[in-house]
Amino acid sequence: MRVLGVDPGTSVTGYGVVDCGDGDGANGASRPGRLVECGIITLASRGPLAPRLQQLHEGIARLIARHRPTTLALENAFYQKNVRTTLVLGHARGVVLLAAQQQGLEIFEYSPATIKKTVAGGGAARKGQVAVMVARLLRLKQAPRPADAADGVAVALTHILRA
Amino acid sequence: MRVLGVDPGTSVTGYGVVDCGDGDGANGASRPGRLVECGIITLASRGPLAPRLQQLHEGIARLIARHRPTTLALENAFYQKNVRTTLVLGHARGVVLLAAQQQGLEIFEYSPATIKKTVAGGGAARKGQVAVMVARLLRLKQAPRPADAADGVAVALTHILRA
Repeated sequence: MRVLGVDPGTSVTGYGVVDCGDGDGANGASRPGRLVECGIITLASRGPLAPRLQQLHEGIARLIARHRPTTLALENAFYQKNVRTTLVLGHARGVVLLAAQQQGLEIFEYSPATIKKTVAGGGAARKGQVAVMVARLLRLKQAPRPADAADGVAVALTHILRA
Repeated sequence: MRVLGVDPGTSVTGYGVVDCGDGDGANGASRPGRLVECGIITLASRGPLAPRLQQLHEGIARLIARHRPTTLALENAFYQKNVRTTLVLGHARGVVLLAAQQQGLEIFEYSPATIKKTVAGGGAARKGQVAVMVARLLRLKQAPRPADAADGVAVALTHILRA
């Protein structure tokens, strides 16, 4: 199983591609997954929305074409206090879901609380803590950067650990 | 100029394709536009969101391929009181905008109040009134049905009358 984890945002979308590993990481010799690639897709914060949506859709479609993941694990929308932000985030999530559906991936969604609880053991974990725990579980020399990329990895890892 | 007007919704998306006419409809011999086609795209109200988004994206892409409009006129999002509805509506609008952007249409957005004011002369016009005014302006024998299709025609006509 190869999982593309995506944490969509209105300006920065983090992603991580993780292969299923040989254990749950509870003993020193096993690890739950192997990191294939992680990074961010950055969208212009100004200007018309449609070209930015196309950029995001193409970015995700290219990642899928390159890595052939079987599964998309998507961070559930945070209901922003600002209704306009929630609406724009909905646009971004829509094109990410579309790209995955068009290429036949299985799709799973996880709430921020579930992700934090699964990788860092607590629903209230801070961003930095998630990145550190992701690095520990995947036996990386350092935490994935930037933080949004680590969030993408965390949602992929969440799917692997809960699947 | 040929305009595709779309009123996106989480379960029903209304659309209308309208060609620019020969006047503003103010005198009896002229009309602002000619209706080419109108209708609705209906999505299943249950089940996973991603296949429904794909259905909507394909529906809009097919309309564009068939009618070759130059312009997309989109009804602006109504900020729903329910934040979850707002978010899902954002997903739907995202894939409509994407389909138009991918085929190189010019994109314009109009608020519900602007649409009502432009076609029916008042921001508080009821749904039925918009359909009746659309029929009168386009010299149709009867109002477009269902109401969602009339809303799609109304946003296309709004663009033509304001352009």
